[in-house]
Amino acid sequence: MADTTPQPTSRTRSWWGWGWTDAHPSDAECVAMGALIPGTLSRPLPVPRVRDLGIGSPAVEPPPSLAHLVTADSADRAAHAMGKAYRDVVRALRGRPGRIPDLVARPRDERGVADLLDWAGDRRVAVVPYGGGSSVTGGVEYRGDAHRAVMSLDLTAMGRVLEVDTEGRAARVQAGTLGPGLEDQLRPHGLTLRHFPQSFEFSTLGGWLATRAGGHYATGRTHIDDFVQSLRVVTPAGTSSSWRLPASGAGPSPDRLFLGSEGALGVITEAWVRLQERPRHKASAAVAFTGFHDALRAVRAIAQSDLSPANCRLLDAGEAALSGAAQDGSAVLVLGFESADEPVTARLERAVGLARAHGGRRGAAVRPDGAPAGGDAAVSAWRSAFLRMPYLRDGLARMGAVAETFETAATWDRIPGLIDAVRAEVGDAALKATGHPATVNCRLTHVYPDGAAPYFTVLAAGRPGDEDSLWDELKAVAAEVLHRHRATITHHHAVGRDHRPAYDRQRPEPFALALRAAKGALDPHGILNPGVLVG
Amino acid sequence: MADTTPQPTSRTRSWWGWGWTDAHPSDAECVAMGALIPGTLSRPLPVPRVRDLGIGSPAVEPPPSLAHLVTADSADRAAHAMGKAYRDVVRALRGRPGRIPDLVARPRDERGVADLLDWAGDRRVAVVPYGGGSSVTGGVEYRGDAHRAVMSLDLTAMGRVLEVDTEGRAARVQAGTLGPGLEDQLRPHGLTLRHFPQSFEFSTLGGWLATRAGGHYATGRTHIDDFVQSLRVVTPAGTSSSWRLPASGAGPSPDRLFLGSEGALGVITEAWVRLQERPRHKASAAVAFTGFHDALRAVRAIAQSDLSPANCRLLDAGEAALSGAAQDGSAVLVLGFESADEPVTARLERAVGLARAHGGRRGAAVRPDGAPAGGDAAVSAWRSAFLRMPYLRDGLARMGAVAETFETAATWDRIPGLIDAVRAEVGDAALKATGHPATVNCRLTHVYPDGAAPYFTVLAAGRPGDEDSLWDELKAVAAEVLHRHRATITHHHAVGRDHRPAYDRQRPEPFALALRAAKGALDPHGILNPGVLVG
Repeated sequence: MADTTPQPTSRTRSWWGWGWTDAHPSDAECVAMGALIPGTLSRPLPVPRVRDLGIGSPAVEPPPSLAHLVTADSADRAAHAMGKAYRDVVRALRGRPGRIPDLVARPRDERGVADLLDWAGDRRVAVVPYGGGSSVTGGVEYRGDAHRAVMSLDLTAMGRVLEVDTEGRAARVQAGTLGPGLEDQLRPHGLTLRHFPQSFEFSTLGGWLATRAGGHYATGRTHIDDFVQSLRVVTPAGTSSSWRLPASGAGPSPDRLFLGSEGALGVITEAWVRLQERPRHKASAAVAFTGFHDALRAVRAIAQSDLSPANCRLLDAGEAALSGAAQDGSAVLVLGFESADEPVTARLERAVGLARAHGGRRGAAVRPDGAPAGGDAAVSAWRSAFLRMPYLRDGLARMGAVAETFETAATWDRIPGLIDAVRAEVGDAALKATGHPATVNCRLTHVYPDGAAPYFTVLAAGRPGDEDSLWDELKAVAAEVLHRHRATITHHHAVGRDHRPAYDRQRPEPFALALRAAKGALDPHGILNPGVLVG
Repeated sequence: MADTTPQPTSRTRSWWGWGWTDAHPSDAECVAMGALIPGTLSRPLPVPRVRDLGIGSPAVEPPPSLAHLVTADSADRAAHAMGKAYRDVVRALRGRPGRIPDLVARPRDERGVADLLDWAGDRRVAVVPYGGGSSVTGGVEYRGDAHRAVMSLDLTAMGRVLEVDTEGRAARVQAGTLGPGLEDQLRPHGLTLRHFPQSFEFSTLGGWLATRAGGHYATGRTHIDDFVQSLRVVTPAGTSSSWRLPASGAGPSPDRLFLGSEGALGVITEAWVRLQERPRHKASAAVAFTGFHDALRAVRAIAQSDLSPANCRLLDAGEAALSGAAQDGSAVLVLGFESADEPVTARLERAVGLARAHGGRRGAAVRPDGAPAGGDAAVSAWRSAFLRMPYLRDGLARMGAVAETFETAATWDRIPGLIDAVRAEVGDAALKATGHPATVNCRLTHVYPDGAAPYFTVLAAGRPGDEDSLWDELKAVAAEVLHRHRATITHHHAVGRDHRPAYDRQRPEPFALALRAAKGALDPHGILNPGVLVG
């Protein structure tokens, strides 16, 4: 197959904030946003500069045989020091990022990955696998000082679709392939992975697999787990290669052990993934509800039907107001259907009917920032707004505000109490800590017959100079509520380092024993993403 | 909740063959069946008797505190010596069953399971977890002599549905619940697990979970894996209890490590499982094809559509002739649709249209032994035939015939070559070994957008007195073909002991290392189902 890897863009990635530097809000925009949140700064914090970090020489040098894969360039190292959580952005703005890696390696093939792991194992160098760097849970940084040096292992030089099986609708894809590059390479075959996390532009297939990413579809095929036919994973104990199969009952699934392993068990280098035809039929509608609990019942009815909406996104009143979907205190349910096969209008009408049976009022049109509407222009508008959110978060961070999200999932019986408790307790904690009222909004991003995934947005005044530890305090309050309601610490943002304490309480202890033993067998020197999941 | 556990039936389970003794074919029926296969015996082998096995005293006695949970009754021990594969039946008929367990334990609750494991660990007694005993891969017997004694751990005294969440459509179910008892206890709530493996009557929820069972539906929700909200598993290192969640991205899934662990990592004691409403709308049709490869293309088109048929069972010409679905050399595709929600006739018509586009001819009616037809009577007839097959197999075994099945799965690109090779090579091997032509038929039981699960039936003359080793030879030929075509050694029959050599070649070596380490952590004395998966 010809090399169809997209060429590098001329745009510049931000080393400290989300995405492209040319898309960052201007100072004036930051000020305008900050004015909406009481207690924030009057002027934005300056954009941080790499040269102010005082990055020194690396503690190790690679051997000559690997030198061509490795750099000690300061800007590169700074850009690989952290992911892109609010707390990462704030730490960069305050001039105290996480530990800067000594080296950044960019292997070009699986052999390079294995050679780098061999060398790192011999020298006890910590290796932090790095895809698009969009982790919002501290998944791609190093904490502590148990290793003599730290190497960020950037997989993005392995960004090609290697094979496409059009008959069986599958492709063999290198792990470092970013979302847009993946879809660009699949498009000529008329196929799509149809996996669109919010980080799509800045995250890789390998990252999605290692973190069990969720796409933005509300039901059906949205979890990356379900798209996996087989994996190749380089571990210090050898390379794992599972067979390409549509299904198998041969023991516990090997792939499921590596899915969600967050770089702690091995480095995923490629996968065969299941593809789909591009949807040709789309229809959407918005339904408003006076009562949020009525809306929850409507969503449950739709999730328990056979309808399988692509979008079934419920915005609470605050979220609906913020996005412009409703200004009258209504909650808004955004419904969307897609199919490559057949018209979906009838399914949409049945879903709207279920919503009306629970007190919903059909809206005249879907707002662009709510969900895909009928026309392509509206879809593009919605998509742009969706992709723009993290940039706005960074603008608020520059104004000293707290602006962050977190997500969870729970069974239906727990959903109403859980949402009420998060709103109340996180809001109270922010008020107590800052003296200013905070906004805690909620939307359901994914729904299931047996439960839902609430996604919370917190907007609050910061604690000047100490925004990250304020956020840590609020997040600890949130984690406590989640634990009390037996709601998972993460639905699709992964565990990383930020969620580790909650994860340790959530996972069954015998499973922790098994995972620790597996880690010991595959990574005997403990060099792989230390501190993540185990170790 | 009141105890609604079904009362024991007055019917008698066969200790050596499938199911109920009163459903076994008569001697005359055996002779009639045997006459259809060249080279079989003229009279059936006698029904084996427990007293001829010369079962001695057990090598260990349970402590007084556990004595009420344990029996050393000979008939009970004989019935727990093996599963119900053809080779198990043949070994019983020839008077040389697998090793008879010393004890059969029937714990009544999780505490009992833990106490029994503690005792067995202290005394190095092997523990073989046992649900309905329907394993067809040697999953519930003990081989070797590394343990001082063997205890079969029968879970069927733990057969209750403990809680039902009608709002979230889920139930907490004890692992020893047999299929009919489970559905009986769910029926008053208007819900169903809708998981119907062929062994439904004689297999348990715990067995389905431990072996990653597949239901008889062709697409969609048919694998037990997808029904699991949470698991409780007693291991020698403690009890694992995962949270009840609709979805979670917190590390590798704990449940997925225990799903398919076949009793080697722990004893599953209960699970929260996802339920469904009972289907109200059904429609079905049969489509005949002159060419099998045309039929394969039709099935692929249907599997890659959004139609999601409940049944999409393709019978090759031999299988169609055997079941009476077609006598003219046609392959027959049986299509069925179900929904709790809405009429399915339109979906059926679209599927039939896809089949016709690939050369299919719609049949006048579905034969009772082919699949669910329109009427309830036909569905019942089909269901009876489906459930009767293992009884007929045992009748053929009594006539000295080889009569066994095996299943696999592969991606679409490999399906035609794989099926041709299995037919040719297993058929040749049987002819060479017995001097008589053999029948090797194939049907597709489960289909996926990216592949299918072929299910093979082998009918051949036996090797008198040595039927099991003949079958082992044929199965080794089959396993070799599967390996060469990268088709899994099992789609839903599990690994057990019979598939272990092929499984060891199939699974990635680093995963084997991880699994071995996990086993060592959870079962440090190696007492749990020794020889299965690892150890």
